[in-house]
Amino acid sequence: MLHSAQDIQWMTHALRLAAHGLYSTTPNPRVGCVIVKQGQVLGEGAHLKAGEPHAEVHALRAAGEQARGATAYVTLEPCSHFGRTPPCADALVNAGVSRVVVAMQDPNPLVAGNGIARLQAQGIAVTVGVCEAQAKALNPGFILRMTQQRPYIRLKVAASLDGRTALANGVSQWITSPEARKDVHHWRAQSCAVITGISTILQDNASLTVREVKTPRQPLRVILDSQLRIPIDAKVLQDGHALVAYAHGEAAKLEILQVMGVRTLHAPNVQGQVDIAAVMQALTAWPCNEVLVEAGATLNGAFLQSGFVDELLLYYAPKLMGDAARGMFALPAWTQMADIHTLDIMDLRQVGQDIRLQARLKP
Amino acid sequence: MLHSAQDIQWMTHALRLAAHGLYSTTPNPRVGCVIVKQGQVLGEGAHLKAGEPHAEVHALRAAGEQARGATAYVTLEPCSHFGRTPPCADALVNAGVSRVVVAMQDPNPLVAGNGIARLQAQGIAVTVGVCEAQAKALNPGFILRMTQQRPYIRLKVAASLDGRTALANGVSQWITSPEARKDVHHWRAQSCAVITGISTILQDNASLTVREVKTPRQPLRVILDSQLRIPIDAKVLQDGHALVAYAHGEAAKLEILQVMGVRTLHAPNVQGQVDIAAVMQALTAWPCNEVLVEAGATLNGAFLQSGFVDELLLYYAPKLMGDAARGMFALPAWTQMADIHTLDIMDLRQVGQDIRLQARLKP
Repeated sequence: MLHSAQDIQWMTHALRLAAHGLYSTTPNPRVGCVIVKQGQVLGEGAHLKAGEPHAEVHALRAAGEQARGATAYVTLEPCSHFGRTPPCADALVNAGVSRVVVAMQDPNPLVAGNGIARLQAQGIAVTVGVCEAQAKALNPGFILRMTQQRPYIRLKVAASLDGRTALANGVSQWITSPEARKDVHHWRAQSCAVITGISTILQDNASLTVREVKTPRQPLRVILDSQLRIPIDAKVLQDGHALVAYAHGEAAKLEILQVMGVRTLHAPNVQGQVDIAAVMQALTAWPCNEVLVEAGATLNGAFLQSGFVDELLLYYAPKLMGDAARGMFALPAWTQMADIHTLDIMDLRQVGQDIRLQARLKP
Repeated sequence: MLHSAQDIQWMTHALRLAAHGLYSTTPNPRVGCVIVKQGQVLGEGAHLKAGEPHAEVHALRAAGEQARGATAYVTLEPCSHFGRTPPCADALVNAGVSRVVVAMQDPNPLVAGNGIARLQAQGIAVTVGVCEAQAKALNPGFILRMTQQRPYIRLKVAASLDGRTALANGVSQWITSPEARKDVHHWRAQSCAVITGISTILQDNASLTVREVKTPRQPLRVILDSQLRIPIDAKVLQDGHALVAYAHGEAAKLEILQVMGVRTLHAPNVQGQVDIAAVMQALTAWPCNEVLVEAGATLNGAFLQSGFVDELLLYYAPKLMGDAARGMFALPAWTQMADIHTLDIMDLRQVGQDIRLQARLKP
């Protein structure tokens, strides 16, 4: 279906508003709304935080009485149920808007279409699907959690042009430029959780917090640590906002971690490793929308093989480290090209002196 | 120095003409010329083949008497000496042009500026340096041969996103897409020689000829083959336009190769390998302007370490092959980041479903 240039223009504006909630709306989706009459913006708003007003409410408040007869552009179908706030569909009806343009339906199959039906039942003209792809791209984790009961997994690797993440002796600071490292913090801030492996913690003692961009919340740090080897003084544990998933561990150490406020998850698989599917279940229940994996080759390979990875976020520094250096993904020694993982490129750009590539795993 | 928009526009046109000679002018440079008066093109031309007219001659012939009082745009300083054709500087003088705009001086330090001086001595206004960077990019090999007595070495690798060129068992067909593989033929056609290693020949029996683009000439195929192991029936030898560089070899095999019209070069280094510097010398004398290296990790690493590589031409397919697969560069097991090779990105784009990256080695 073709949409008018005007509808696309205003929906693009609403999408830009929605992005204000990129670091903060979780577990809710990022949503933007703009109220327009005769080419004039009467009110606009974004959902910023769970429990606070939805985007439509902000926009309607700003528009006031003028909303009567106006068009509302909303990046997600207005809600039709009483949650922590009253239904936005009713608010739009009560304000007297004559038309609502929606970028995408509610992804929850149990409620999708109810908000739209509620508007239409009151004689409001509704157009659905304007800038739908962009609206979906804004909430990949929320959509996946609603439709498939799992978070959206983005796996990040920083490497040289020959695919190496560290020298043979483990030295890796710094392969990529400050600009690329700052860019990673933007993705951490969008994520409800950051997953790493115990090797990365033992090697780098990374905190995995968001520091280079301003954010109102820190992601939950999840450490996959089969043998519960994590040092009690590891930086990643110090703010208590961490989850250690393990297969075998001493009761005494578990007790110390729990006293520190660190969550623990007993999730062994038959090989005595941490079961990735069990971790995914726990993160869905948390609830997590987007999750960032920042690990070494072993865990990166295990995640790829688990089938849970949705997107690769790859940074390449213009450097060559050689075949003796450490690789990106520990994977089986395949013997035919049909076995390897294939991807679709989503985005390619330069960040500082480095290259950033986003790609989607093909099923 | 700032140049006028008009000068830049016409020089860009001349550069586009020069590119017609991309596959054919060697050992001469690619040169384009356009003659302009009052915003009108009176004549244009490109140098296409050594021994045939220079770009200026083609353009002046087309312009005829109208060239009097016109401006000539030439991508390289007009020659001032009698070679296989008379000096173009004299031709421009005789045609009566009143102004000559030159993108770059002759790179040969012994003759640079002579053509310009000859024009100025006849009262012609000369502007030098318009689109100089683009003009230099058009003839990297010719410039390097004139200034440093060596060819321009471009090293090509096709790999997965994790820097792997083949599975552990050597299977590599096909990592990249048909579009990327065709693009490689464009670079082969620009090259005077293509260098590979004996392992690549034994593994793939590649011919390394230009097939996917139209070209009037094939590059010399150079095989680095320390022990002279190359099979007499290798595809790469069948058109006789090949050079086998070796360290040790049987007289009988050398004789067969020579009868087949294959050149041989005895170039051992102290390790009993082929000496890359000696091969470079032979290719300079040939003479070669641009040379493409298409080899495996061992030779790629040796070339990088030799210091002769000017540019990397990297194709990445959106695939992941894992750490068990073969890497791009065999290099020493460095222990500090200061040791690794660093590059500057020249160009980044998508070719078909793949990514193409050009990068310059930092000294």
